[in-house]
Amino acid sequence: MRLDPAEARARFAASPVLRLATADGSGRPHLVPCTFVVDAAGRIAIGIDNKPKTSLKLRRLRNVEENPQVSLLADHYADDWTRLWWARADGTAIVERGGAEHEAHWRQLTTKYPQYQGHVLDGPVILVTVASWSGWAFG
Amino acid sequence: MRLDPAEARARFAASPVLRLATADGSGRPHLVPCTFVVDAAGRIAIGIDNKPKTSLKLRRLRNVEENPQVSLLADHYADDWTRLWWARADGTAIVERGGAEHEAHWRQLTTKYPQYQGHVLDGPVILVTVASWSGWAFG
Repeated sequence: MRLDPAEARARFAASPVLRLATADGSGRPHLVPCTFVVDAAGRIAIGIDNKPKTSLKLRRLRNVEENPQVSLLADHYADDWTRLWWARADGTAIVERGGAEHEAHWRQLTTKYPQYQGHVLDGPVILVTVASWSGWAFG
Repeated sequence: MRLDPAEARARFAASPVLRLATADGSGRPHLVPCTFVVDAAGRIAIGIDNKPKTSLKLRRLRNVEENPQVSLLADHYADDWTRLWWARADGTAIVERGGAEHEAHWRQLTTKYPQYQGHVLDGPVILVTVASWSGWAFG
């Protein structure tokens, strides 16, 4: 059954991980799993942490700067298919690289994910304004 | 660390679920979780089963017909971040709607997923030819 937007948003916000789909200017999609928080304004903030893999030229960043349209998915898989659900946020993104809001988003990410403790976290944040919430659950 | 393509493919193939990113002709991404198999030719087959939500006008199908570029992700999340990994297949898709290969893909899907037993399974199959495998695991 379809989830109403409030239920989709609640399930999404409680998930530890999302998958971010971006597309470049030619429409070529790109997909990565990401940590995230939902901020006080209801936007979704995705931090680019400072693992060695990280560069400021990551495709997810280039794509958002070429084409701000994004789709974000949280889902639950189980062999018992009566427990399946997914929740999706579709919207547009910008890249935050500094300022008070950027610092606040990193503080919120560090609060949600204690795994970040001891890391230097000042990388770009992909900030998504959600245009629509949708979702599905079995039954 | 980056996974080599063979390792990324092996982890991907062993996963029970993938996330499919497509984009329409204007580059607007779309994202859904899907069941899948890797066929004998190394292609990824994603069946559209006959749940009530399903129609032959699903956005994933329209998008593939407008723009064959796709990105597929399998990933593992755990609170213990030393266990994180993801594997991605980037490629191009077609939609199969009938014929012997289409039937063979549904048979392979039913073998992988006993949950399909008792369902009528003759919907479209999104068939992806993979151009590149990539992935990442902690460490």
